[in-house]
Amino acid sequence: MTEVDVRRKILADNAATAAALRARFARSRTLVVNLISSPGSGKTTLLEATVRALAGRHRLGAIEGDIATERDADRLRRLGIPAQQILTGGGCHLDARQVRGALDERDLGPLDILFIENVGNLVCPTSYDLGEDFKTVLLSVTEGEDKPFKYPAIFAKSEATVISKIDLLPHVRFDLDEVRGQVRALRPDGRILLASALTGEGVSDWCALLEERLAAKRGPNP
Amino acid sequence: MTEVDVRRKILADNAATAAALRARFARSRTLVVNLISSPGSGKTTLLEATVRALAGRHRLGAIEGDIATERDADRLRRLGIPAQQILTGGGCHLDARQVRGALDERDLGPLDILFIENVGNLVCPTSYDLGEDFKTVLLSVTEGEDKPFKYPAIFAKSEATVISKIDLLPHVRFDLDEVRGQVRALRPDGRILLASALTGEGVSDWCALLEERLAAKRGPNP
Repeated sequence: MTEVDVRRKILADNAATAAALRARFARSRTLVVNLISSPGSGKTTLLEATVRALAGRHRLGAIEGDIATERDADRLRRLGIPAQQILTGGGCHLDARQVRGALDERDLGPLDILFIENVGNLVCPTSYDLGEDFKTVLLSVTEGEDKPFKYPAIFAKSEATVISKIDLLPHVRFDLDEVRGQVRALRPDGRILLASALTGEGVSDWCALLEERLAAKRGPNP
Repeated sequence: MTEVDVRRKILADNAATAAALRARFARSRTLVVNLISSPGSGKTTLLEATVRALAGRHRLGAIEGDIATERDADRLRRLGIPAQQILTGGGCHLDARQVRGALDERDLGPLDILFIENVGNLVCPTSYDLGEDFKTVLLSVTEGEDKPFKYPAIFAKSEATVISKIDLLPHVRFDLDEVRGQVRALRPDGRILLASALTGEGVSDWCALLEERLAAKRGPNP
């Protein structure tokens, strides 16, 4: 096999496993969100705020992808939700096989929403379907407003873009309108949310989006 | 070939090309620095400050690696130094072949220091030698103090760690001592520098490190 053949085979195998995962999540009626961002954009902190807001109403769980350390899963377990850590070693993204393995290894119980926090990386996770309902990309206001056009694939593939750490807006140069324009150009039907997990601002909009998607997945009550 | 064989071959080919680049940079007595960080940690902004500080004394040039857009090379060209952009398409890192190609495509002229700004990514660039004298990793204070242990390989392989955006320290939770401890555990002989390219604080320490390494590479004057 050539390099191109190998890559094609890896992605085809991943797509097959992701399709099986998607069927499994459809049966359990679990909404699955694949969270992607640079390292340090605030994925885990947003999840902590989400758990505080929604854990009383919905059964939440998380799969945490990291190169090393179990810190992120520990942070969520401390809030009382089941969280399974996947350590990729050197791997720069999660794949569907790893997600299936994590779910088989440890039953997270029946869940309404499963968050999959990908490895901190704006590039590699883009190509790997994990069987999720939708991808969400986070971009913190400290990262600069040029990022959507510099990393276009992930912003095009994400149904929602969360602009995070907006409490720092007064202290950084960050042109919100420029970012909104870039995201809309890449994903015209995408949702753009602003949030600060630290102050709580905007977290309710994010939670409303999750509940709206959960209700749509579950359909009308019988 | 299996996936493992393919990966081994890619890295072996890269190592051979990097060795040839290193010999080329030795002949031209050019100090080469491979800059690596998450997206938005401030690599280009640090380079802009470096150019302002050193361009009068040394011949500087840059190779800019990005998924898309020529923005970073444009920013440096505006300051009057030659800069060549490499667009990787979807690729999450630069490789030695791309660097050789960029240098062959456009002669940057005789240089004292060549900066190679890698694709924004804490994972993939770690494995690819570009023929540089040393790697430098940037970590901005907004990214959180857990990052060295979460992305250990790049902090272990970098001779210098630049903690960037220190002007934001009053506004974020970031334990400098914790980060220093993690970096020292991963790279006991590494240099840790603090800098704000915005206020200029610490930029002179970074420039002093570059000049020290340049002088060491050039040896005593005849």
